[in-house]
Amino acid sequence: MAQHVSEGRIREMIEAVAAFTATPGRGTTRLTYSAQHRAALDYLAGRMQEAGLSTRIDSVGNLVGRLEGADPSLAPVLVGSHIDSVPNGGAFDGPAGVVAAIETAFCMQQLGVTPRRPLEVIAMIEEEGGRFGGGLLGSRILTGQLGPEALAPMCDSEGVSLGEAMAGFGLALQEAGAAAIPEGGIHAFLELHIEQGPVLEQTGDAVGIVTSIVALSQLEVRITGAAGHAGTTPMAGRRDALVAAAGVIAELPGLCAAVDPRAVVTVGQIDVHPGGANVIPEAAIFSVDVRADRVGTVDEIKSALRTRLASLEAVGYAVGTEELLAVPETPMSEEIRGALIAAAEDCGFAWRPMPSGAGHDAMVLSKIAPVGLIFVPSRDGVSHTPEEWTDYDQLARGVEVVFRATRALTA
Amino acid sequence: MAQHVSEGRIREMIEAVAAFTATPGRGTTRLTYSAQHRAALDYLAGRMQEAGLSTRIDSVGNLVGRLEGADPSLAPVLVGSHIDSVPNGGAFDGPAGVVAAIETAFCMQQLGVTPRRPLEVIAMIEEEGGRFGGGLLGSRILTGQLGPEALAPMCDSEGVSLGEAMAGFGLALQEAGAAAIPEGGIHAFLELHIEQGPVLEQTGDAVGIVTSIVALSQLEVRITGAAGHAGTTPMAGRRDALVAAAGVIAELPGLCAAVDPRAVVTVGQIDVHPGGANVIPEAAIFSVDVRADRVGTVDEIKSALRTRLASLEAVGYAVGTEELLAVPETPMSEEIRGALIAAAEDCGFAWRPMPSGAGHDAMVLSKIAPVGLIFVPSRDGVSHTPEEWTDYDQLARGVEVVFRATRALTA
Repeated sequence: MAQHVSEGRIREMIEAVAAFTATPGRGTTRLTYSAQHRAALDYLAGRMQEAGLSTRIDSVGNLVGRLEGADPSLAPVLVGSHIDSVPNGGAFDGPAGVVAAIETAFCMQQLGVTPRRPLEVIAMIEEEGGRFGGGLLGSRILTGQLGPEALAPMCDSEGVSLGEAMAGFGLALQEAGAAAIPEGGIHAFLELHIEQGPVLEQTGDAVGIVTSIVALSQLEVRITGAAGHAGTTPMAGRRDALVAAAGVIAELPGLCAAVDPRAVVTVGQIDVHPGGANVIPEAAIFSVDVRADRVGTVDEIKSALRTRLASLEAVGYAVGTEELLAVPETPMSEEIRGALIAAAEDCGFAWRPMPSGAGHDAMVLSKIAPVGLIFVPSRDGVSHTPEEWTDYDQLARGVEVVFRATRALTA
Repeated sequence: MAQHVSEGRIREMIEAVAAFTATPGRGTTRLTYSAQHRAALDYLAGRMQEAGLSTRIDSVGNLVGRLEGADPSLAPVLVGSHIDSVPNGGAFDGPAGVVAAIETAFCMQQLGVTPRRPLEVIAMIEEEGGRFGGGLLGSRILTGQLGPEALAPMCDSEGVSLGEAMAGFGLALQEAGAAAIPEGGIHAFLELHIEQGPVLEQTGDAVGIVTSIVALSQLEVRITGAAGHAGTTPMAGRRDALVAAAGVIAELPGLCAAVDPRAVVTVGQIDVHPGGANVIPEAAIFSVDVRADRVGTVDEIKSALRTRLASLEAVGYAVGTEELLAVPETPMSEEIRGALIAAAEDCGFAWRPMPSGAGHDAMVLSKIAPVGLIFVPSRDGVSHTPEEWTDYDQLARGVEVVFRATRALTA
């Protein structure tokens, strides 16, 4: 089989976008509505136009390029990902999917394909929440979940409101709702993303074809004991909130494995109060992130955690838990998975079905259209760091599959 | 026996000083060189003068009142404590000892006692480190351990340097060395302090007569594992720095008790990096505060901790420990303890010998003179909060013992 995509052009686009960073030499920092964001959009719009697309920026800053279909009245197939990064992140998380979509348009152009359905490629804003905290912002606006009222209170860490930042980017907060895609407005959404985990690297498969995005729960747990002077309070009778929290955190992996060895649980944040080196912690507050194939499994793990926390209440601690986020599993479209599998098979690429442990824009867009998600390998499984890496030949294989599946979906 | 001290006057002075707070209604906030500090010194100098003392403020802001002795050539007995507070602290930590010293002078005056040795009462600066971070600042300057060079880099949280703050208080940083007490400059130092622990409340003793201030070590431990995405990194093979740290922190109390059940160990601070709710912690950094009667016991506990940490290195974590502070035990003067015990016995007060788990100005001043330290009960053992409390009759009993011991020591 002939490869249609150009590894050289893919590399050129990834490297060009990576250069639009606020932290040269220290990874990619491209926050939404920053000068780097603007420069990246200008560059990508130029490449889209070269690839024969007509471009527009929607009312919140998502860049869209359109290849008109033979039947313009049909809903388009949307392909793409996000263009923002975490602070000091990598070159691939987000841009790989945007570049895959543009390269798909280049291939259509080179082959002289006029699809029946329109093709739209997209570079979405603020998936990471790196500036305004709420992740998946672009896709949540596209699906009509967030309008001006919900967006107005959002601020960045320097107190700049989202509305002020939009104004600086030539956008108007009150127009945010115009970006929402109406019912039936897209036929399908397809996203390529780096795996952000070690599985494909370990199995040697070229691509992962996602079966579903895992169910997810994020909790905040607060354990309250009693403060006291570190030197003058005997050990007996202490109610040290951090010692209690540490016992829970140390046991969480085992507790999770007992429910489902494929589930994952992570405590990524912890704070203690009052926080003096010579003061017994009165309160320990920590995050708990639980993910599993099915929401029922997540619920079982949460329940095991609650039982463990109740054992602390029995010895005089107060415990509060708040669920900040709860998302059931998101199945990927069977039709799009079929198109991706057929494309991978045609290319002779080793592929594997796999769940996605991370949420992506595809998860949100599944609310309005069938979605597909394809992974390419991540070196050492790392992402969100300057060391994030996918070899360009690995990325090109993924893009080839995206191109072929897109050609089929738009035919 | 007749009680000499006036509970009413003690209460009046404590309440007056407590009113000099930057946070009325939310406890005592009297930071060094603040307007509240100035007002407290003005008030206390007035009370000292009423009690027959001549007053001066030394070159760093310690307020000293002197009752001349029959033999003015003799080194004085110094009695007192500190006048600064932590932010939103209590009314007793520090002021109780200053008020005890002034009340002692009132008693001398009322009884018409002219001591052979001079008596000096003192209200020291910045014991808590609440403004400039380094604790025990006043006593360390008095003992010549800190001069202008060491003080110059210190800043408060708003970037005001210690020198600038001194200038605003009418003091000159370059004169700081003049406050140092020369060799043989004091005969003894005696401090009354609230216990800041639950022992006296539980035993019902009127006062604790401190045998020694415990040996202390403060460590910073850094455990480094591997970051990763919380959703995409399987549990097997994770090196989660917080899970590793939590295992250590949960085991520390048992590890300490195995060495000496009277020793105490506290983790009061913990930070994780990078600190995202959906990121496996790459690093966990936490404080460890260890205290015991003898430095040998502290060393044994540190050694047990190091063995436990080495077990993490064996499974792929990197571990670093840094000792930020190491202080051997500080024995109190036998002569002064004898004077305190005799005074308590004369009064018919129940007393107990006890170690001090907290460092105090007495610990530092022991470098230049014999020192004594006496505790009064703390309700619920709490301090450094607005709830900090000692009943005035309890405080008066402690002050009576201080007065009698001081009379003996100055005789």
